[in-house]
Amino acid sequence: MSQGGLAGVTIGQLADQVGMSKSGVFAHFRSKDEVQIGLLDHMAGFVAPRVVEPAMGEPEGLPRLEALVRNWLGWAPRAGLPGGCPVAAGMFELDDVPGPVRDKVAAMEAYWRGLLGQLVRQSVELGHLRDDLDVDQFVWELCGIYLSHHASSRFLRDPDSDSKAHLAFRSLIDRARPLKGKRETGQGKS
Amino acid sequence: MSQGGLAGVTIGQLADQVGMSKSGVFAHFRSKDEVQIGLLDHMAGFVAPRVVEPAMGEPEGLPRLEALVRNWLGWAPRAGLPGGCPVAAGMFELDDVPGPVRDKVAAMEAYWRGLLGQLVRQSVELGHLRDDLDVDQFVWELCGIYLSHHASSRFLRDPDSDSKAHLAFRSLIDRARPLKGKRETGQGKS
Repeated sequence: MSQGGLAGVTIGQLADQVGMSKSGVFAHFRSKDEVQIGLLDHMAGFVAPRVVEPAMGEPEGLPRLEALVRNWLGWAPRAGLPGGCPVAAGMFELDDVPGPVRDKVAAMEAYWRGLLGQLVRQSVELGHLRDDLDVDQFVWELCGIYLSHHASSRFLRDPDSDSKAHLAFRSLIDRARPLKGKRETGQGKS
Repeated sequence: MSQGGLAGVTIGQLADQVGMSKSGVFAHFRSKDEVQIGLLDHMAGFVAPRVVEPAMGEPEGLPRLEALVRNWLGWAPRAGLPGGCPVAAGMFELDDVPGPVRDKVAAMEAYWRGLLGQLVRQSVELGHLRDDLDVDQFVWELCGIYLSHHASSRFLRDPDSDSKAHLAFRSLIDRARPLKGKRETGQGKS
């Protein structure tokens, strides 16, 4: 799924990879939709211990948000998935394909944006980010950085993808800092 | 292609839509790759008169760049394509699928980023954007805004996608302004 996209998952391919007959796979999953949903759930099991849990060990607020973003960018190849992030791909592949797989991808993306929003709000509450920050806009721009990193690293194969993503994220954080913090760190004009 | 993605284009569907027999379509195109490349070329014919040419009528520099970005965001539905931008979708769908269709999408994306870079550099030369601007980074972040807008408008169906994209673009421009211009417009702290 990670390499061929969601639509590339056929019952036959799956049967080949797990060494089962097609009918054996069919006995487990009633439809191709169920196969795709099962694989997305399987993928979610990669994200929790590699991306979310290590970040949750960092101090609350900005350190935790920064750790989560560091773990998130490029998580799929680091997790041993040879392709990219199936949720990112699903948002472009399934935008016009209603059904349970689209619903699953939408629920995973909503959960993810909710988690990001929660960590951003926590950073605001702790005074690490400024009081009047537009949290939805922050998360929206952060997701743009993730998507641009995905496209530039995986499709364009730009060797500077990581550094560009980190620079963009630093700039997003710096704009969101309280004015006092900006002056102290001298990053207010970036 | 705009609705079902590049992989969704089958010779049979195309034959249905243009009212030809499958063999008639095959006589025109030797392979599915050629069909997809032909459709991407056809799409490029929609972009020039709707996105690029009207922007080229604006004054050089920042006004032209701003017009191009305005025309670019959401261009596909405005052009009457019911689905999204096939190049954006192709970057996520074909990242692991080598071949002439991937090469075509990569060439179109490279042309597009080249055009954006040219208009940004022109804005620097005319003093509309600052001398020390990292043009590649600016274009990279701008492409992130486009991808985030695509995902939020088409997949998440967020009704605020346009306003979020325009806010993100305004912020990108404001950060890139010469310091003098920042003070004059009072936008330096955004």
